[in-house]
Amino acid sequence: MADFSTIASEFVKFYYQTFDTNRAALGGLYRDTSMLTFEQQPFLGSANILEKLQNLPFQKVEHRHDTIDAQPGPEEGSIIVMVTGALMVEGSDRPMSFTQVFQLRPEAGSYYVFNDIFRLVYPAA
Amino acid sequence: MADFSTIASEFVKFYYQTFDTNRAALGGLYRDTSMLTFEQQPFLGSANILEKLQNLPFQKVEHRHDTIDAQPGPEEGSIIVMVTGALMVEGSDRPMSFTQVFQLRPEAGSYYVFNDIFRLVYPAA
Repeated sequence: MADFSTIASEFVKFYYQTFDTNRAALGGLYRDTSMLTFEQQPFLGSANILEKLQNLPFQKVEHRHDTIDAQPGPEEGSIIVMVTGALMVEGSDRPMSFTQVFQLRPEAGSYYVFNDIFRLVYPAA
Repeated sequence: MADFSTIASEFVKFYYQTFDTNRAALGGLYRDTSMLTFEQQPFLGSANILEKLQNLPFQKVEHRHDTIDAQPGPEEGSIIVMVTGALMVEGSDRPMSFTQVFQLRPEAGSYYVFNDIFRLVYPAA
């Protein structure tokens, strides 16, 4: 089995690629107990999470991930991943900084997203 | 017992207040199994973590936390907390954006930091 940091990198690459090209497929990464906090709004369960992600006020978006940090979580096999990056939204020429944290839980030789927190980051001053 | 979001807010307030006024006391928040990833550098255990935090290249710093998001972790009683904010370092007049994630684990009616990941966030463009 790959180490946690390789798994984290592969997950992040897959997640944003899927987000940017086939958002509906993200639903398969979540379960009924999964949580998303998106800009302070909480969502529980894959159906609600997918609905939120599909109804964001932009249809075309491109994520760039600049940093990926990972650590094993307290639960055996779980992995916590923090990403910083930028997103380019259709119709805007200014990338926006974001940060996102995932906690991945092992399931049947793969992983699903248990925790997901997303925030845009505005310039400090 | 307070709910996870209240605990998260109180922890964040306490953490940065302690960081900014009495950094040595942060050691008590970590255990031997705790992990810190600080700007990509990994540290394991309270002694190594405290040494890193005490030897940052600034003695005086002020953290401002702008957003705090929390979710229960997969492990019973654990809490994942994501912070975005700014830090003002002595000798610089420009605040720097940062993001930090903590995973808190319950212990004897209180909590300690199991996961800690810190990154400065640079403007996207």
